[in-house]
Amino acid sequence: MKDFLVVKGNIIYTKDFGCYEIYKSGYIVVEGKKVIGVYKELDEKYQNCHLIDYGDNLIIPGFVDLHVHAPQYPNIGLGLDKELMPWLEAYTFPEESKFHDIDYASKVYSRFIHDLWLQGTTRVCVFGTIHKNSTAKLMDLFNEAGLGAYVGKVNMDRNSPDYLIETTEKSLQDTESLIVEYHDKYDLVKPIITPRFIPSCTIELLKGLGSLADKYRIPIQSHLCENFGEISFVKELHPHANNYAGLYNETSLFGNQPTVMAHCVLVDEEEIELMKEKQVFVAHSPNSNCNLSSGIAPIRRLITRGIQVGLGSDVSGGHSLSMLKVMINCHQVSNLKWVYSDRIDKPLTTPEVFYLATKAGGKFFGEVGSFEAGYDFDALVIDDSLLPQFKVLSLEERLQKFIYTGDDRNIKVRYVAGKEIKEPKIL
Amino acid sequence: MKDFLVVKGNIIYTKDFGCYEIYKSGYIVVEGKKVIGVYKELDEKYQNCHLIDYGDNLIIPGFVDLHVHAPQYPNIGLGLDKELMPWLEAYTFPEESKFHDIDYASKVYSRFIHDLWLQGTTRVCVFGTIHKNSTAKLMDLFNEAGLGAYVGKVNMDRNSPDYLIETTEKSLQDTESLIVEYHDKYDLVKPIITPRFIPSCTIELLKGLGSLADKYRIPIQSHLCENFGEISFVKELHPHANNYAGLYNETSLFGNQPTVMAHCVLVDEEEIELMKEKQVFVAHSPNSNCNLSSGIAPIRRLITRGIQVGLGSDVSGGHSLSMLKVMINCHQVSNLKWVYSDRIDKPLTTPEVFYLATKAGGKFFGEVGSFEAGYDFDALVIDDSLLPQFKVLSLEERLQKFIYTGDDRNIKVRYVAGKEIKEPKIL
Repeated sequence: MKDFLVVKGNIIYTKDFGCYEIYKSGYIVVEGKKVIGVYKELDEKYQNCHLIDYGDNLIIPGFVDLHVHAPQYPNIGLGLDKELMPWLEAYTFPEESKFHDIDYASKVYSRFIHDLWLQGTTRVCVFGTIHKNSTAKLMDLFNEAGLGAYVGKVNMDRNSPDYLIETTEKSLQDTESLIVEYHDKYDLVKPIITPRFIPSCTIELLKGLGSLADKYRIPIQSHLCENFGEISFVKELHPHANNYAGLYNETSLFGNQPTVMAHCVLVDEEEIELMKEKQVFVAHSPNSNCNLSSGIAPIRRLITRGIQVGLGSDVSGGHSLSMLKVMINCHQVSNLKWVYSDRIDKPLTTPEVFYLATKAGGKFFGEVGSFEAGYDFDALVIDDSLLPQFKVLSLEERLQKFIYTGDDRNIKVRYVAGKEIKEPKIL
Repeated sequence: MKDFLVVKGNIIYTKDFGCYEIYKSGYIVVEGKKVIGVYKELDEKYQNCHLIDYGDNLIIPGFVDLHVHAPQYPNIGLGLDKELMPWLEAYTFPEESKFHDIDYASKVYSRFIHDLWLQGTTRVCVFGTIHKNSTAKLMDLFNEAGLGAYVGKVNMDRNSPDYLIETTEKSLQDTESLIVEYHDKYDLVKPIITPRFIPSCTIELLKGLGSLADKYRIPIQSHLCENFGEISFVKELHPHANNYAGLYNETSLFGNQPTVMAHCVLVDEEEIELMKEKQVFVAHSPNSNCNLSSGIAPIRRLITRGIQVGLGSDVSGGHSLSMLKVMINCHQVSNLKWVYSDRIDKPLTTPEVFYLATKAGGKFFGEVGSFEAGYDFDALVIDDSLLPQFKVLSLEERLQKFIYTGDDRNIKVRYVAGKEIKEPKIL
């Protein structure tokens, strides 16, 4: 019975959208990486297994961040006074250009990964930069830390500053060589095809990336319909295209392999239909969309239409890696969307938002983000005893209070794929 | 020269809306409660004064919270799934009814004040409950802690649950007796007239409160045009009234004495004109307005029209006492307001938001919220050295990074009216 781990505590997770599964002083049985089951009472056959009792603490799935830019971490909390396109020029591109220097990259990336860990993020879809070696380093560091990640070398071969641009050929070569080296190298860290967005990629590059995705069966991440100025630029560049999503679709970058598109604030009906058909995920990044004056994505509508929506911190358009803060903001903007959609798009509830931050985003990684049997055991142990307490709260209320008023100080233990993850080193 | 205190550090404050005053390694000279001046070099006459050197830390004005409900603190982070009126019935009124018990009140209020201190709030306009003794206790505890506060016994004599209602007569009596006892008792803690809002106060009560305000020259706080359902109810109750603000105005509760109205999300043109004429302050509480699906107050428009706007946490409609989080949300919703006002109401900038959280709110307390000569020395010493740093930042950028990514851990020292305020006791 040495292979089983039993974890005891107040267990909360979501199996279905908006419905908590709650086990007060319950047991999660884990075998290797996987959850065997969650139980109110522990079956006799597990009685002699290694049991860790977390007492009155909450045990919840780890958070999944479906969209974040690692090299933008030095800019976190800075330069949030512009819309997307001028913001990229003024703040983001100059910072990203520094990542040709692998020492600088190691310093930033190790702190970035440390802080993801700190905030309880256990799985993440990350953008690197155009630089191959720094992106390889980012994958190595994720693997050392023990977090799960899809890591993308960014592709940019047009409309980019001289100091941050590649030739189409080099962009494809570097991408392919990273794929070849890394797609089977690590268990929890994998490459992902990452065209920055339509404005910075020629059709030739997009087609090449689409072929690589299909050839090696590599997932895809990019940006879609984030901001008014961006969409206008795409229309200007491609006046005969039906829409923004169509350009990804025509180049085999829209759901032929698992695909996640950040933002989707301003997607049109045809794009929504295509996303549904191609099972494209949305990385809803509300903090970023507020900070860069992009607007509010129609999340309730997308979910009702059957589209998979997870959450993204989108640092540094977003100002925090904390998925708690993303959840709060997600709830808030869903309320505002309701108000400003003539009360049609209903607000999201707390268990719905929690589902988005765990199981919905986790689906992009396979069976991740829940404690159902067969799921990877990614978990956080939450000690909420230091939050102001004046009355007895239900476990649901305790979780809600943690989401709204807690922070990294309340996260005591983190598990990824069955393994406790200790504090990663900062280089 | 014993009466002078000299404080050295990286000083940032706002004299004018949207403009930082910055003194790198500058000096603030304080005499008693007041700032004498801020200097790049220290004049010889102050050379022998007591000097505290905060090194590379930032020194900024303390934060001013113009709207918060102390008795709602036990509900913080809970029950944010309803609009205002059902939220009051389901969560808020039952909690507030507990404050007939002064022991419970002491426990909650001491923690509340402790946590305001923790978050760097140095001045605050607070709602208590209808209960006289608990509200008196709240004033005593603020005084013991050393924070500045206007504290209001709430008035409610109609449309309120049986367990949380007063007669008109008792409401006025209790209010007057608190005023008589407290209006000269403490230097930094004062009573404020606090009708809950129009739905819960008869015109007779409002008139009585208006008379008390005028008789004792006591300021006034209440709620105005927060939420669609609330405004509909006011119209139903007073079908012949011009508007919501007019009802306060007719009863001498709208600017005859200094007045602050929370929210003003849905004020009409006539109300804006009246607010300007009567110099009524707005306590903009964006987190609460998002959480309770109220909407986005037209802050840029109000400011352009010459209305004084400060910020409020509005706990527990708001989910955090941290004015940092209020500032972030204020910035975010101003961006969204711009997007959804056809790009007419320009977004607020970081120095504009900082001004709202310090000097603009501080005006309600007199000369508070700035380091100009004659202002009360309310200050925070900010150690941002533990925030991720990868490049040399300007002082402006360091302040912005602190606002967006810092928290109570970065606040090392707090001053109110010239005095360092140590951690308040939790009862």
